Amino acid sequence: MTTKPTNVTTGPITGSKKIYISPEERPDLRVPVREIALTGDEPPVRVYDASGPYTEGGAVDLSAGLPRVREGWLEARGHLESYEGRAVRPEDDGSPNASQVLPQFPVQRRPRRGKPGALVTQLEYARAGIITEEMVYAAARENLGRSALVDGESFGASIPDVVTPEFVRSEIASGRAIIPANVNHPELEPMLIGRNFLVKINANIGNSALASSIAEEVEKMVWSIRWGADTVMDLSTGRNIHATREWILRNSPVPIGTVPIYQALEKVHGDPQKLDWEVFSDTLIEQCEQGVDYFTIHAGVRLAHVPLTANRVTGIVSRGGSMMAAWCLGHHRESFLYERFGDICDILRKYDVSFSLGDGLRPGSIADANDAAQFAELTTLGELTKVAWEKGCQVMIEGPGHVPMHKIKANMDKQLRECGEAPFYTLGPLTTDIAPGYDHITSGIGAAMIGWFGTAMLCYVTPKEHLGLPDRDDVKTGVITYKIAAHAADLAKGHPAARLRDDALSKARFEFRWIDQFNLALDPDTARSFHDETLPKDAQKTAHFCSMCGPKFCSMSITQDVRRLAERTAGLEAKAAEFREGGGRIHMKIVDDQKAPSAE
Amino acid sequence: MTTKPTNVTTGPITGSKKIYISPEERPDLRVPVREIALTGDEPPVRVYDASGPYTEGGAVDLSAGLPRVREGWLEARGHLESYEGRAVRPEDDGSPNASQVLPQFPVQRRPRRGKPGALVTQLEYARAGIITEEMVYAAARENLGRSALVDGESFGASIPDVVTPEFVRSEIASGRAIIPANVNHPELEPMLIGRNFLVKINANIGNSALASSIAEEVEKMVWSIRWGADTVMDLSTGRNIHATREWILRNSPVPIGTVPIYQALEKVHGDPQKLDWEVFSDTLIEQCEQGVDYFTIHAGVRLAHVPLTANRVTGIVSRGGSMMAAWCLGHHRESFLYERFGDICDILRKYDVSFSLGDGLRPGSIADANDAAQFAELTTLGELTKVAWEKGCQVMIEGPGHVPMHKIKANMDKQLRECGEAPFYTLGPLTTDIAPGYDHITSGIGAAMIGWFGTAMLCYVTPKEHLGLPDRDDVKTGVITYKIAAHAADLAKGHPAARLRDDALSKARFEFRWIDQFNLALDPDTARSFHDETLPKDAQKTAHFCSMCGPKFCSMSITQDVRRLAERTAGLEAKAAEFREGGGRIHMKIVDDQKAPSAE
Repeated sequence: MTTKPTNVTTGPITGSKKIYISPEERPDLRVPVREIALTGDEPPVRVYDASGPYTEGGAVDLSAGLPRVREGWLEARGHLESYEGRAVRPEDDGSPNASQVLPQFPVQRRPRRGKPGALVTQLEYARAGIITEEMVYAAARENLGRSALVDGESFGASIPDVVTPEFVRSEIASGRAIIPANVNHPELEPMLIGRNFLVKINANIGNSALASSIAEEVEKMVWSIRWGADTVMDLSTGRNIHATREWILRNSPVPIGTVPIYQALEKVHGDPQKLDWEVFSDTLIEQCEQGVDYFTIHAGVRLAHVPLTANRVTGIVSRGGSMMAAWCLGHHRESFLYERFGDICDILRKYDVSFSLGDGLRPGSIADANDAAQFAELTTLGELTKVAWEKGCQVMIEGPGHVPMHKIKANMDKQLRECGEAPFYTLGPLTTDIAPGYDHITSGIGAAMIGWFGTAMLCYVTPKEHLGLPDRDDVKTGVITYKIAAHAADLAKGHPAARLRDDALSKARFEFRWIDQFNLALDPDTARSFHDETLPKDAQKTAHFCSMCGPKFCSMSITQDVRRLAERTAGLEAKAAEFREGGGRIHMKIVDDQKAPSAE
Repeated sequence: MTTKPTNVTTGPITGSKKIYISPEERPDLRVPVREIALTGDEPPVRVYDASGPYTEGGAVDLSAGLPRVREGWLEARGHLESYEGRAVRPEDDGSPNASQVLPQFPVQRRPRRGKPGALVTQLEYARAGIITEEMVYAAARENLGRSALVDGESFGASIPDVVTPEFVRSEIASGRAIIPANVNHPELEPMLIGRNFLVKINANIGNSALASSIAEEVEKMVWSIRWGADTVMDLSTGRNIHATREWILRNSPVPIGTVPIYQALEKVHGDPQKLDWEVFSDTLIEQCEQGVDYFTIHAGVRLAHVPLTANRVTGIVSRGGSMMAAWCLGHHRESFLYERFGDICDILRKYDVSFSLGDGLRPGSIADANDAAQFAELTTLGELTKVAWEKGCQVMIEGPGHVPMHKIKANMDKQLRECGEAPFYTLGPLTTDIAPGYDHITSGIGAAMIGWFGTAMLCYVTPKEHLGLPDRDDVKTGVITYKIAAHAADLAKGHPAARLRDDALSKARFEFRWIDQFNLALDPDTARSFHDETLPKDAQKTAHFCSMCGPKFCSMSITQDVRRLAERTAGLEAKAAEFREGGGRIHMKIVDDQKAPSAE
């Protein structure tokens, strides 16, 4: 067994500096921003930052946990009570033997929950007309460099030029947005998931039952938020998942999601037939007290839906969904998750844990897309959404899966209609089945499209999907691919601030400010290393060409010569004359002559 | 300097066998197909194959060139004359000095051209109601496993259930499709580019002025078609481009495209001002005689268009486009390519070289997408298309570039309208500018969408775009990414045969036929190596789980247990009972317990 986790990746993103801004309404709040300094007279570019204190530059003591930024807010409301929480039992960690026990997080605190009758959830506060600190904080994050520029097609979304705390409140009150924020996760830096805000992405992690799992999983969390993951799902199964989750939560600035039925299954030794309300509700309370921010719950997999999957090419591909299908068939009873849904709401509400209503019957292949089973479940998720809202709970809805391009929009339209515009949270979708090893790409295509159509958060897919366990590089590739999809969606929706970064990078590219181009990239390190592979000399960082076209064939360079003329003179005749004398022979003196493939 | 190229990558794709089929109409034709054999009783899956004899398994003698499959067809028509071609001059190869001279292709043949007044181009034959061997051959390639299955949205395309030679003829006669096939490229395996056929992809190669360039470029061509490139553009510049091109053409089974102005610029020592009709037409004839199948010609960059680029963020990003803009300004004259376009047509027609009308003013950034300069050029390309058709030439139109998702369809719609449905051939488009190092992905998103909307061929983008010279791995990544985009588009358009491969792979996945899943993948080697990283033991190839979810959490495995019950019994009650006794505890005996991130 290993000792406590001590090392994670820290330090600023290359070329960036972490700063904190304070909203006018609440100068006491410190909202994180990543600032990219540019050369010359170019103003710095500010980008959304989900990476937490790990990119500040200083060391982070994992055994102490992150600063509890929400502590004062939660106390001041006076709506919470702390109490003697549920005692942690060996089975919570899969009853490890002595050699398997991993270290518990050193600091233990009493859990909190809402006092009887008091407002607890962000939804309840929003409906009461109260703007919480979480709303002010999250609103400020959305406004980076927000300009008047609006140019896009938002399919009925209504994106404001500037996000105000009041707008955030109204979006939450209507159910169109959520702030996943368990009262027992004070380390959280609040963020928004909703169609009228920046498209967010989720990264999945989870222990692999190796001795070093805790250190590995904490690093995986830190690594994925470093590259831009807005939330992280801990899909751990097997042993030590309670201990692992505690370490992750105490060190996570982003919302943590889980699938509680995984741990419940471990508590009944892997036999889905032995699942029942007692073990499931016990697991919910255990995780609510730890501070998990949202739960995937497959309450839409009903007994009557199971036969609808009989003729599918790939049956049921959701783990939680297949467990509940097995349970329903095995007992020939309606799902206890469906029957006890109201009780589930009562538990989640007390801690403000958000629902992520699971799509247990999502299609696992192009052949099964948009079929009766999938849409029957979606209709049930719509019913459940209304129940959860009645109970004061925040809700988002999970979506597919494998869907060809021409069937993607129907998913979004149906979800908006059936689920009252609750935020949609989709996996991909993958637009073809034939590229295992490249499913970050097959799904990135679908993710960009459904994000444009209105999906609020995209769950990443890594190159290892369908094949095995993602490693560190796979996680980074998945996150970057999904940041691309989310940003492409923000551009297409006409998010006012989205294009500022594209324009800044393209201007840097056109002006051969190579370092600025690298630093503005989603992955500055890879951009620079690719460039340096073929033009390593530092001198080349200022060269007015790259190895792709070489000096004589650099269109941007030729264009700049044309521009210089246009600026210095008026009239095409004058331009023509000057050009003949002056810039006519372009960069001929530069001897580097290498050329490369490029669309002409 | 190096000796002649001798080594290229040969041998079958893993798990596949190259076969040849003969169309009923012409049993003498041998049309290549790749057959993927599956295990058990599963029928083999046949896929489109552009890889040429290199995947047959035998050796290939590069100094002899490929078999001249079209030789007999061209002779039998009696419409061609061979003649004493233009003598190759030192400047054709950039006047290399003794140490720079590379070996010319050993076999020299007299070029052919159309006899005066005789039919030459596929368009002319199609209009005359004549079905050529090229049409029969290309039709057969499109029909692989074609079934009655039709499910998609084709935006006005009219895709037949079965492609007949007559349908091909009518599509070519209407200008909606082309078969790029220079009479001096008899080694060509004819293929179709058109909206009612499979979406094709192009890979760019080109010498990098290294001593070993010829061997490298021939290998790059062979490598890119091995992974699925349907055409290859040789964008060589610098020295020895005539010699390099000859080696590529004599060994290429796919159409080869070029941008003749690159070589013309070399002939005038890199000074765009010195370009004129004489050097350009001389270059056209040189390349027509060698057998280039299509030319990118930027005749749409007119003097009046240049000022429209003045306020762009990234100006002119097409190399050919920037040269012509410099020429127009420098001479303050209308483009000679535009003024002499009729003469250009007369040259290309005699050899049946197809036009790829270049988008010299395509947007190089999100900010410049769909602007006045881009669309003014597109309108001009529409005029030129009609001129070329009048002259009997085949035409396709090049498209952008950098375009956000919400502005992509407008490009397709305008191109169809302005250019009379001539095939669209687009670069990407890239849907955001902020991910250098990942532009195969930013552009793969746009490529899949515009392919769905109706683009006939997608020009690949590699991870090195904007940064440098793609290497062998970059070329493969670019090709696989674009095969994904093209296939996703075929699925969404409802191409009748496209889904067969997805369904076969998904069925293999569901039935844990790992080897079949790997072999059906676009890249079997990568799929297998990713799987083996975490489950290397051969035994695991039959395991009913993978390391992603582990044995207890494999949804497909659970589903199969549910299925088995359903098959063996009738009635849910019976199922339930049996399930409790029998399959209730699933795969518990398997000790492997590793779990991994996965969307639940």
